[in-house]
Amino acid sequence: MTVTRTVELEGHIIDSGTMGRCFGVVMDLGGEFDVEEFNVGRHKHAETYCRMRVIAEEEEDLRAILHELNQNGATVADPRDATLEAAPDDQVVPVEFYSTTNHPTFVRVDGAWIEVEDPEMDCALVVERTEDGPAAHTKVLNAVDEGDLVVTGETGIRVEPPERPRNGGSSFGFMQGGVSSERPSASLIEEIADEMREVRENDGTVLVVCGPAIVHSGGRDALADLVREGYVDALSAGNGFAVHDLERDLYGTSLGVDTESLEHPRKGHKHHIYTISEIGRVGGIEAAVEEGIVEEGVMYQCIQNDVPYVLAGSIRDDGPLPDTITDAIEAQDAIREQAHEADLVLMLSTLLHSVAVGNCLPSTTKTVCVDINPATVTQLLDRGSAQAIGMVTDIGTFTPMLAEELLEE
Amino acid sequence: MTVTRTVELEGHIIDSGTMGRCFGVVMDLGGEFDVEEFNVGRHKHAETYCRMRVIAEEEEDLRAILHELNQNGATVADPRDATLEAAPDDQVVPVEFYSTTNHPTFVRVDGAWIEVEDPEMDCALVVERTEDGPAAHTKVLNAVDEGDLVVTGETGIRVEPPERPRNGGSSFGFMQGGVSSERPSASLIEEIADEMREVRENDGTVLVVCGPAIVHSGGRDALADLVREGYVDALSAGNGFAVHDLERDLYGTSLGVDTESLEHPRKGHKHHIYTISEIGRVGGIEAAVEEGIVEEGVMYQCIQNDVPYVLAGSIRDDGPLPDTITDAIEAQDAIREQAHEADLVLMLSTLLHSVAVGNCLPSTTKTVCVDINPATVTQLLDRGSAQAIGMVTDIGTFTPMLAEELLEE
Amino acid sequence: MTVTRTVELEGHIIDSGTMGRCFGVVMDLGGEFDVEEFNVGRHKHAETYCRMRVIAEEEEDLRAILHELNQNGATVADPRDATLEAAPDDQVVPVEFYSTTNHPTFVRVDGAWIEVEDPEMDCALVVERTEDGPAAHTKVLNAVDEGDLVVTGETGIRVEPPERPRNGGSSFGFMQGGVSSERPSASLIEEIADEMREVRENDGTVLVVCGPAIVHSGGRDALADLVREGYVDALSAGNGFAVHDLERDLYGTSLGVDTESLEHPRKGHKHHIYTISEIGRVGGIEAAVEEGIVEEGVMYQCIQNDVPYVLAGSIRDDGPLPDTITDAIEAQDAIREQAHEADLVLMLSTLLHSVAVGNCLPSTTKTVCVDINPATVTQLLDRGSAQAIGMVTDIGTFTPMLAEELLEE
Amino acid sequence: MTVTRTVELEGHIIDSGTMGRCFGVVMDLGGEFDVEEFNVGRHKHAETYCRMRVIAEEEEDLRAILHELNQNGATVADPRDATLEAAPDDQVVPVEFYSTTNHPTFVRVDGAWIEVEDPEMDCALVVERTEDGPAAHTKVLNAVDEGDLVVTGETGIRVEPPERPRNGGSSFGFMQGGVSSERPSASLIEEIADEMREVRENDGTVLVVCGPAIVHSGGRDALADLVREGYVDALSAGNGFAVHDLERDLYGTSLGVDTESLEHPRKGHKHHIYTISEIGRVGGIEAAVEEGIVEEGVMYQCIQNDVPYVLAGSIRDDGPLPDTITDAIEAQDAIREQAHEADLVLMLSTLLHSVAVGNCLPSTTKTVCVDINPATVTQLLDRGSAQAIGMVTDIGTFTPMLAEELLEE
Repeated sequence: MTVTRTVELEGHIIDSGTMGRCFGVVMDLGGEFDVEEFNVGRHKHAETYCRMRVIAEEEEDLRAILHELNQNGATVADPRDATLEAAPDDQVVPVEFYSTTNHPTFVRVDGAWIEVEDPEMDCALVVERTEDGPAAHTKVLNAVDEGDLVVTGETGIRVEPPERPRNGGSSFGFMQGGVSSERPSASLIEEIADEMREVRENDGTVLVVCGPAIVHSGGRDALADLVREGYVDALSAGNGFAVHDLERDLYGTSLGVDTESLEHPRKGHKHHIYTISEIGRVGGIEAAVEEGIVEEGVMYQCIQNDVPYVLAGSIRDDGPLPDTITDAIEAQDAIREQAHEADLVLMLSTLLHSVAVGNCLPSTTKTVCVDINPATVTQLLDRGSAQAIGMVTDIGTFTPMLAEELLEE
Repeated sequence: MTVTRTVELEGHIIDSGTMGRCFGVVMDLGGEFDVEEFNVGRHKHAETYCRMRVIAEEEEDLRAILHELNQNGATVADPRDATLEAAPDDQVVPVEFYSTTNHPTFVRVDGAWIEVEDPEMDCALVVERTEDGPAAHTKVLNAVDEGDLVVTGETGIRVEPPERPRNGGSSFGFMQGGVSSERPSASLIEEIADEMREVRENDGTVLVVCGPAIVHSGGRDALADLVREGYVDALSAGNGFAVHDLERDLYGTSLGVDTESLEHPRKGHKHHIYTISEIGRVGGIEAAVEEGIVEEGVMYQCIQNDVPYVLAGSIRDDGPLPDTITDAIEAQDAIREQAHEADLVLMLSTLLHSVAVGNCLPSTTKTVCVDINPATVTQLLDRGSAQAIGMVTDIGTFTPMLAEELLEE
Repeated sequence: MTVTRTVELEGHIIDSGTMGRCFGVVMDLGGEFDVEEFNVGRHKHAETYCRMRVIAEEEEDLRAILHELNQNGATVADPRDATLEAAPDDQVVPVEFYSTTNHPTFVRVDGAWIEVEDPEMDCALVVERTEDGPAAHTKVLNAVDEGDLVVTGETGIRVEPPERPRNGGSSFGFMQGGVSSERPSASLIEEIADEMREVRENDGTVLVVCGPAIVHSGGRDALADLVREGYVDALSAGNGFAVHDLERDLYGTSLGVDTESLEHPRKGHKHHIYTISEIGRVGGIEAAVEEGIVEEGVMYQCIQNDVPYVLAGSIRDDGPLPDTITDAIEAQDAIREQAHEADLVLMLSTLLHSVAVGNCLPSTTKTVCVDINPATVTQLLDRGSAQAIGMVTDIGTFTPMLAEELLEE
Repeated sequence: MTVTRTVELEGHIIDSGTMGRCFGVVMDLGGEFDVEEFNVGRHKHAETYCRMRVIAEEEEDLRAILHELNQNGATVADPRDATLEAAPDDQVVPVEFYSTTNHPTFVRVDGAWIEVEDPEMDCALVVERTEDGPAAHTKVLNAVDEGDLVVTGETGIRVEPPERPRNGGSSFGFMQGGVSSERPSASLIEEIADEMREVRENDGTVLVVCGPAIVHSGGRDALADLVREGYVDALSAGNGFAVHDLERDLYGTSLGVDTESLEHPRKGHKHHIYTISEIGRVGGIEAAVEEGIVEEGVMYQCIQNDVPYVLAGSIRDDGPLPDTITDAIEAQDAIREQAHEADLVLMLSTLLHSVAVGNCLPSTTKTVCVDINPATVTQLLDRGSAQAIGMVTDIGTFTPMLAEELLEE
């Protein structure tokens, strides 16, 4: 005896790979499919429609197949409302809770499809009945409250995976995937600059996620210039980045050492601790800028230009600075807010912070990952933005070239 | 004014990605498509058929599109014989020569489709008229002779890209792609062992491509055991691998140094040179084994068990050994022969030799790439075997575990 | 006009590199030296003594030179008591505070040298007057309280950098430095096993720092066995490691999926969230073990064998588990305690947690860093244990081979 | 019963590490030392002198110790002439042949020290008696002729390892070692540019070793400009580099594709083959330039500016071009000549060719290794130039920035 269910797919599902992935899912998980209707999109702009019956041996197998199909864009035919179940406790989800993708998602409530706010992957999907009718949004596990109406199963959920755009061209294309090692670096930098200009022209938000290597490798001045000139709307980093940036200002000149030359790592470290101590003494970065202790650099430009920043703490930090959020949950919440508001995210030489930001991004947000380690770039791209481009390059040459491209006109 | 041509595709073209790639090629290269017929495969074992018209602005654009479509499995409809043009000179191909993929390929000559022998990528396709009728085979550029009948254009050529197998399961699956870092190492080693056993049972040929790291990292004894026990049918390596292997035998015990402990690299290098000198003195590895100078190790077992080997020279070699083929073309020819005969190829910790072997492999040959550097594994898998698996691991633990799996039963 | 000061060095300072580094420091920082006395150690066991005058242009330059000399083992001659200055505020150090190394350190207080407790790098050195006389210990910046007597300058401080041992041999040697890629993996694993046995025989403490790759790569069972058999005395990890470990138990069998085979990453992630939800529901890992929800794995064995663990939170975590310490400072404090008690530290496939532990280790603690990424191993070894060994290998083959070595006797 | 021998060292042997390494060698190899005389260099410019007796259990052990001491700069006291033994056959060395370092080396013949020409590591040392008296030079194994007088043992040989320069500062310093990841990229590029300017002003020779990534990553035009402007005096590369460079010219514009944009790798490969075919048709690169087939790029500028190049073949090559030397020995000889003439070597993104060049370099030749893979940089620096600097960066941003630094003044 077998169990069966009918699903539908619609859109540019052949060249976007959706159709192939769905056939694959069924076969991989041991099921069968029977295509009941298939209207191919005859030309570039015509969409394809497919309705197929999925057959499995056991109910459990079918459920697993349907979960995967749903996450790949197939919708259970004969739409019914999504199943809602109350969360049994704070931070506890019902057994068959629907785990979200980062694609645009719709839930069927009271017979109508409503769009899920802030799509983010690996969340629960919570439906709230408001005065204006039902609303749906994602909730990370630790935000789930007892009694929250959590969607379970796959019924009544529609996911829209990214589609291959109808015209090629842009680097911010479709699953360009992989990494740029075969691309001319200078022209990729130009494309990134173009994208930043466009976001700025549209009053969008550019979020820059940065690691301390930017300072070591000599990209600090260029990044500070970009902040000053308004190309950066928000900054996400760790305690280490901020301290390295501030230390360059506090000690770069005062000790008579040319900040552009070789640093003595151990000695530098004493400065690192002392910088934290000094910033702590006055109460934080903003106070240090006001008191004239800090007079240049990335953090300085953030303060001067009202660019909001999140400094998230980690167990490898020294100090930390008073500005650093040491609680991981609290820091995640702050990062989540930044991620949701961003139109373009530049991830520069930091795995930890980039993953944290990437976890909160919908697949529709344009993302650029720059790192000298190809494994870092691959790992970030794999997390799932279809509009991401990766670039394996040296942040110490990338940042000045990007700034030159944007500022010297 | 536009130009147009009709192509056909058939097979499991949706879930194998062929159809999607073909639509993508047309759009990326600025063309349009018009699907004239589309019969979807309704269930797992049913094939899909598509006939579509491709439209481009210029003849040249159309040619570029057709070339890419062809390499992805589309065949020009209304089949005519392939166009043949004589090579204008030795090692010179006609302007529009057809550049091969490594997939099974068929050429239409005198109204009949004939299969191309030894499919190999980036070759010319040469048709010969023999007593038994026309034959087609690949020729690398430097093997092309003046007057050879070389196929030009895409007419009359059919390529069969790998299809997703109808049942999942095997690691040697379909474009499993990527790299194994998320896979349990021990179970991957078991699967590789299974595959080696199967090839042996079917009297197939296992080709092992090996780098010197096998010796450094302590995998030499295990590999020698595998050769002795008949799990290795051919060996492809460089001068360095052989010298390191022989050196262990010549000096590992005679100087009273425990070969399993830390080697002193510089001192070792004197042994390296002296080993080459000694083997050279007697005339080669086989002579050294016969004279009792070499009494164990991988090369020893190759000699004792009639396992043919190719040692290809390179500009970074010391010596080299008399057995090493120093001319790159000659070495490539020897490697090509090994590659064409192999049913399973194990590439162990060598980029240079693995690329050389991989260049000659058809996409149907099962291939395993093992290296500690993920970039090496990725680069090798990208070259194109659909039946390849990659494993990022330590050759010094991999080889003993593989030998244990195969030998201790 | 120049300034000058006399320093002394004593010990195996030539072959340990101390003497050479000290000459180098003076020259690099623009100073001059004048060796007043030099008694070379004539043979292996004889120590060398050197007294030299250091000359610089400016007081500030001299101070910089003396700081570096001190950190490399030179002591200011004519010993006077260390200078103590009260911390001006909580988490604020005096301007010229002495920044510690991770080597054994002594402070001169009231005319006597007292040993610094818990040497740890980049800390302040705080002297306390207790009933039993003065005591000295390290304090990280955020632990400094207003009024703490903090050592400033280099006067009255003696550092003992590691010396080259008089007999060679052990891998846990002296600045073996670098990475093991040229070493036979199996014999390195034997040496690590020997060291673990020895620590166990001496009732010492083995601290294992672990990343989630242990679970992915199939090393979980072996590590659980080592915990069960008493080879692991403490465990330091992140939320992710624990969840992956628990998830294998919760879902590895219950869903009928062979945990040893390929996991479906996305689907796996739903399990990941649900595991956190389930463990949270009962209140934590210990409760989950007691209630029989978790019946095997690393965390299970930790609970059953009273092996204390620290799970430190990070901004990339899901959940987290109730056991996870989300505040970075609190987590650091817990890690610091583990680090100070450890006699041998195994760092397995985690950069973040290994750096956090490594930051708290004295240079005398034996340390093993295992990772497939050579950059990770290098970065960890560079932080400064002279008794560290690094191994670039696959944790999925390393862990089973280590367990086999230790358990199958 | 023990055996003993007395050795001497002289120079800046403490801060250059020589003395410490020599003590270490004796202890590591199980010997004892007894320092008979030690005159420390009291100040920066004063040299240190040491005479010590080395004691070992067995003659063989002593020989091993003396070999290592010699290679580290110690000379057997009571100088006697070097021992010479005739090579027993072509490409065969006497048993105890002296294996060279790449440091400046002197041999004692007929009571006089003569300097070895072209010091190169892992060679035999051959003494020739000429009309002008005895001469000594290195010979790689395959150049050794029957009857050549080859030095054996360590007697009568003096090696001068690099010494720490007396003034710090230059990046081309002393064993700066390691890799630049912590250095500001832009300032490193400035220093490299300074060095290139200086070599040019002194009519020295800059050898550039280049890999195909230069072309892929967009650095081709910048490198061509540097050749045109006289900053490159010789070029060493493989067949692949030349073909990629030529292909850009042959197809970059003719097919209407913007060479600066994304290339289609497969399609590009057909061009690759066709480029080789076309260049072959006219007989080589020079002919192609003369016939106007090639009108720009790196190879074009080499031809136009009489910059000699070596293209060394490898087993992974397509074609190859008529200019490519396919025999590894012949190619090595050509590379050796380039290496011996170079005053500054830039190794850009190629492991194979950089190793081949590096093998032939004396330790006194300034070398810069640039690669995006830190393992490549480390491996090259480890081979032994004390005047080498390594830089982990993107060749696609490095090359334009270097050209801008040198050309835009």
